[in-house]
Amino acid sequence: MSNQAVARLAGINVGSPAPHPSADFGLIGLAVMGQNLILNGADKGFTVCAYNRTTSKVDRFLDNEAKGKSIVGAHSVEEFCAKLKKPRRIMLLVMAGKPVDDFIDALLPHLEKGDIIIDGGNSHFPDSNRRTKALAEKGISFVGSGVSGGEEGARYGPSLMPGGNEAAWPHIKDIFQSIAAKSDDGEPCCDWVGDEGAGHFIKMVHNGIEYGDMQLICEAYDIMKRGLGMPVSEIAEVFAQWNNGVLDSFLIEITRDVLRYNDDDGTPLVEKILDQAGQKGTGKWTAINSLDLGMPVTLIGEAVFARCLSAIKPDRIRASKLLGGPTPKFTGDKQAFIKDLEQALYASKIISYAQGFMLIQEAAKEYGWKLNKPSIALMWRGGCIIRSVFLKDITNAYRTNPNLENLLFDGFFNKAIHNAQDGWRNVVSKVALWGIPAPAFSTALSFYDGYRTESLPANLLQAQRDYFGAHTFRIKPEYANNNFPEGKDIHVNWTGRGGNVSASTYIA
Amino acid sequence: MSNQAVARLAGINVGSPAPHPSADFGLIGLAVMGQNLILNGADKGFTVCAYNRTTSKVDRFLDNEAKGKSIVGAHSVEEFCAKLKKPRRIMLLVMAGKPVDDFIDALLPHLEKGDIIIDGGNSHFPDSNRRTKALAEKGISFVGSGVSGGEEGARYGPSLMPGGNEAAWPHIKDIFQSIAAKSDDGEPCCDWVGDEGAGHFIKMVHNGIEYGDMQLICEAYDIMKRGLGMPVSEIAEVFAQWNNGVLDSFLIEITRDVLRYNDDDGTPLVEKILDQAGQKGTGKWTAINSLDLGMPVTLIGEAVFARCLSAIKPDRIRASKLLGGPTPKFTGDKQAFIKDLEQALYASKIISYAQGFMLIQEAAKEYGWKLNKPSIALMWRGGCIIRSVFLKDITNAYRTNPNLENLLFDGFFNKAIHNAQDGWRNVVSKVALWGIPAPAFSTALSFYDGYRTESLPANLLQAQRDYFGAHTFRIKPEYANNNFPEGKDIHVNWTGRGGNVSASTYIA
Repeated sequence: MSNQAVARLAGINVGSPAPHPSADFGLIGLAVMGQNLILNGADKGFTVCAYNRTTSKVDRFLDNEAKGKSIVGAHSVEEFCAKLKKPRRIMLLVMAGKPVDDFIDALLPHLEKGDIIIDGGNSHFPDSNRRTKALAEKGISFVGSGVSGGEEGARYGPSLMPGGNEAAWPHIKDIFQSIAAKSDDGEPCCDWVGDEGAGHFIKMVHNGIEYGDMQLICEAYDIMKRGLGMPVSEIAEVFAQWNNGVLDSFLIEITRDVLRYNDDDGTPLVEKILDQAGQKGTGKWTAINSLDLGMPVTLIGEAVFARCLSAIKPDRIRASKLLGGPTPKFTGDKQAFIKDLEQALYASKIISYAQGFMLIQEAAKEYGWKLNKPSIALMWRGGCIIRSVFLKDITNAYRTNPNLENLLFDGFFNKAIHNAQDGWRNVVSKVALWGIPAPAFSTALSFYDGYRTESLPANLLQAQRDYFGAHTFRIKPEYANNNFPEGKDIHVNWTGRGGNVSASTYIA
Repeated sequence: MSNQAVARLAGINVGSPAPHPSADFGLIGLAVMGQNLILNGADKGFTVCAYNRTTSKVDRFLDNEAKGKSIVGAHSVEEFCAKLKKPRRIMLLVMAGKPVDDFIDALLPHLEKGDIIIDGGNSHFPDSNRRTKALAEKGISFVGSGVSGGEEGARYGPSLMPGGNEAAWPHIKDIFQSIAAKSDDGEPCCDWVGDEGAGHFIKMVHNGIEYGDMQLICEAYDIMKRGLGMPVSEIAEVFAQWNNGVLDSFLIEITRDVLRYNDDDGTPLVEKILDQAGQKGTGKWTAINSLDLGMPVTLIGEAVFARCLSAIKPDRIRASKLLGGPTPKFTGDKQAFIKDLEQALYASKIISYAQGFMLIQEAAKEYGWKLNKPSIALMWRGGCIIRSVFLKDITNAYRTNPNLENLLFDGFFNKAIHNAQDGWRNVVSKVALWGIPAPAFSTALSFYDGYRTESLPANLLQAQRDYFGAHTFRIKPEYANNNFPEGKDIHVNWTGRGGNVSASTYIA
């Protein structure tokens, strides 16, 4: 590294004159998302200061994409901070984890009380909890903001989910709501989410739901391809149709485009892409969090596991030669089945969002956050990957009743899932016979049937646990009596052998 | 607390003369598991010293269950340690977590180099990793041992899964293999598992598999009850039959007994038990670990989520009034369907164990443990909750080929799952139409069909990710060319808009 570069890393300004603070906000990290967010901010009339650890990236950006726009650059952290109006508004778009802490440490010597550090990366929400507290003690307002929309969203209007130190909100609201996407009624897809890591928590759930939506689409594509024997071009047109109906959404739209995209040889590129997906992201965090909070967010769980299964392709190749199954033979009305498939996808999606909001509700309880559910749905309506007409209906559901216990209890969705049921069941039932995996469709249906079951077979499970581990059970209120009082932990000696000591340490 | 009690907690021997070391091993924690393990050890001819923080429990135990046996007691940690032959062999059966560390700290002042502390509780394996290292530095050998079998197992022969500091093994092998259960060929269900927390890891996976086995049985019971409309007494006889076939196992056997157990009014007690199951145990850890290691252990995942769903019964009661579904109407040959159900349970169980061993294999790689798969299966053959004839076949599979990549590739299980397939598919297909939840049966089938699929739809998923996030994809080797070289991360500008910068920080 050159001495200048070293000096810059150390935050020592090299050569250039003390700059005049002109920038409305600054952004650190000039990868695709960072560059596009800066261009977006400039389009909205803000002056943005760009900085990147590898400063050559700054120069390249200024000489190209940023040319002629209200964008300035900095070659050191010190210069960067000196160019920002006060209170300084600094967004980090760097790799989650240590790099975020490193930049916060590098920034602190150049900041003043009231300045604002915004982490726009995919940080894990407990880190944002920690950073909010730590920086508050130094008089710096920390904001952990979910940013969704990928390249396109960042450039033309992302979904922004800011949470953390609420003192920062009045100073960043105008910028955030200007660069954010707008819903089709013109509402900005950005609002204050809640305390500490609430913004990154909501982004985490968003990504989990994104995992689920993508898996559902993949299953529908696979069923059309292998179950109905349709060519990719025909499947593309089905998604094109679906995009005019209840499934109208960004992911369905790009699926149509992806399936229509041909390689130079005129065949669909998608068929040549390796079927191994990454999964070490926020979807996994959502699944783990749902296990920790004890919420059955099964669809996201299966979507993450589906990526794990895709990742071990060498094993699958071996298995494909050793494990047999039926050959799908579709008979009947293909158009009718495609309608059923649309309903299966719609119903499963309703379940996935219902589960996601169950998790959000439990998190608010567990972490003591006040979370505004209508505005969460609103933030997801535009800009982000899961944006859809669907989310307008969810926004309405929570605006009509902010205390709605479950999305499935809302009039609109209750009617929708009842209408979708027959087609959904038909698809899940058929693919089991055809030998085509549809883990997300199937788990969604299992959840629906389990959730609406007043008496699940867990009574047997509790009896088993008491039998082998003296774990005790409770009695159904309607059967309570003197032997078996309601709400008491009861142990029965099922065998006549063994002790009558109730378990107090052993937990299976 | 009395001064004496305080003195005893502090480890100060009160009054009694310095005792002569007579006990072969000592056990701390006189809950049901601890008491039964001590009685088991005494039956095998060992002299056991019993201690409990609440010393009145010691006296009550000595005056009752322990009377007339080679069992001595202690009223302080000091007295306890003084009564043990050297090297001291001390087993803790206390609540996992802080209590284990507290007792280790209380014991250390009274121990000498070479003494052995065994944690027989359900500790999380990372804690056992930590304790093995920390105690090794003090010259104390730590062993984290899985203990399974509940009340009965502890009393008459549990499955023991010891791991940690291998220096301890020669000193405890005789005791462990004497008190452990024996397989039906007379082999002790106890062997050295591996380094650090390997013993508790294997116990964790065992418990995860136990969650799965129990969930599968609950689903079969529910399908017979609600799908076939069978009374509990008839269902009990089906389990009795199954216990003579491929499903022959402890859990099937106790299910039969549980279903036969009538309340004073002559009706099955099981039907009166509240259907809310606990889930904050080792099953959850297994699911989280499988997400962390990226292994699709879907059946255990669904089993844990099924417990979560059972736990939110108030929501389910509400939902049962608002969410409709079909009414199961069974037509056809009931006996034939029950045979299909047996096959569905058998096949799903094969999948669950295959997934469990996939996780164990990955953990050995990830944590650098040498794990002996045949002996793991052997340890599970007797004594523990999941003991079964089935595990003899798994032991054989891994003895025939210790490097077996997947249980499904073993000749016996490969044949078994192919035979079971039709019945399995029929059951999963039917319950979807009937509206009866069978998440474990269904996810097992989805896994089987996904695992044996050479090309999963993850190619579409990778295209979507590259479209919206420039995440890049790879090409299938057979389609590699100069534009799209094999093994390279490729980004395509799907829209013609947006930049051509590949993502380096944004991970969806």
